[in-house]
Amino acid sequence: MMLVEGARELSRAVAAGVRPHELYLCPELFSPEAQELVPGLETALGGGRATLLSRLAFEKVSGRENPDGVLGVAPLPVPALPDLGRRALVVVLHGLEKPGNVGAILRTADAAGADAAVVLGRGADPYGPNVIRASQGSVFAVPTLALGEEEALAWLAEQGFRTVACTPDARQDYWDAPLTGRVALLLGTEHAGLPPEWRRAHEAVRVPMHGQADSLNVATAAALVLYECVRQSRA
Amino acid sequence: MMLVEGARELSRAVAAGVRPHELYLCPELFSPEAQELVPGLETALGGGRATLLSRLAFEKVSGRENPDGVLGVAPLPVPALPDLGRRALVVVLHGLEKPGNVGAILRTADAAGADAAVVLGRGADPYGPNVIRASQGSVFAVPTLALGEEEALAWLAEQGFRTVACTPDARQDYWDAPLTGRVALLLGTEHAGLPPEWRRAHEAVRVPMHGQADSLNVATAAALVLYECVRQSRA
Repeated sequence: MMLVEGARELSRAVAAGVRPHELYLCPELFSPEAQELVPGLETALGGGRATLLSRLAFEKVSGRENPDGVLGVAPLPVPALPDLGRRALVVVLHGLEKPGNVGAILRTADAAGADAAVVLGRGADPYGPNVIRASQGSVFAVPTLALGEEEALAWLAEQGFRTVACTPDARQDYWDAPLTGRVALLLGTEHAGLPPEWRRAHEAVRVPMHGQADSLNVATAAALVLYECVRQSRA
Repeated sequence: MMLVEGARELSRAVAAGVRPHELYLCPELFSPEAQELVPGLETALGGGRATLLSRLAFEKVSGRENPDGVLGVAPLPVPALPDLGRRALVVVLHGLEKPGNVGAILRTADAAGADAAVVLGRGADPYGPNVIRASQGSVFAVPTLALGEEEALAWLAEQGFRTVACTPDARQDYWDAPLTGRVALLLGTEHAGLPPEWRRAHEAVRVPMHGQADSLNVATAAALVLYECVRQSRA
């Protein structure tokens, strides 16, 4: 089960086929967006249970500073490996620990039209409350799969993906690499980067840096390379 | 005066010419990086005063969850309008309120080699502790000027900048706009965008969006357009 807080986030989960079992509502705290979205959430409950909470009680169960009065409990989604076209874009996260970064990458992947995200290793739980919040619910819009490393490598190879490792020690700037067709972007932790077996990719690309910053934030680097894929694939 | 926490952040301030008046240190809390950087900070103190604090006292003055034992008080920098080359890149922030976004944009601007950042209107204080932290000290590496709107518009015009408004309702994708020469990227708040007088720019560009996310984070959009300037200007 997972806990999904926020009207927008829960609506995105419902839009992706998630059916909440329980809904906790505090109308006093509703944002205008919550006001608008709650009827749809109540419909999605089916046989589930909606409970009204006092403001005090809601603030106790909420994980947010400014809750919008909407919280649901739902079974974890089990997204299937997606059917892919000639062009496909997948982002593979290896052991990223900061929920804010994972959520930000999923949000950008959604905006860039990515087909899926694959989460590997011991990193942030993609269905943890902080990832859901940071992604603004995009974790439900982009099929997000937790796979074993072997399984992920086999699937990428079988589907003919061009694997692209994003790593600061690459010799090639990201805009110089061919990023069309079926592309899987591989991202490692800010601290340790990608492990050796994931660096043996078809391409290794870096984001060139001119300033003093030690490294771009991993979510910023991911956004740049994701959108370079979109730029290169545009009609 | 400003309060600069963190060995890295304070070192970047010192590298930019800032001279701290006071230094508060808690060796028990030093990170390896702090260990390495503190001697340089002590040298930069000049006639200033270094005070050792107990762990308890340091944690009380610190604004961070995991302080590294280094905190300085210094006069606010007064960066001059920079001398500009044929190519120049400036980012103009209009009223951005979230310190995390302002800091993230400054960090990316530093990595992209931007010549300056201009902060307009009632937004986050660029020398507030949360911007300094989110920028990892890049606010000192990229000259960051707080200007009035008239003054900023006059300076941009006088210096022959091509102004580029980043706005979701633009008709042109950012990679289709000419972004070479002297370019000033104009960014508004996530909520209200840019005010009318700032939309009358030479170009208006948008980041195309394919997913459900309502909008890219403003710092992500800024990163994409900043690096498109770099891509178009490369040798």
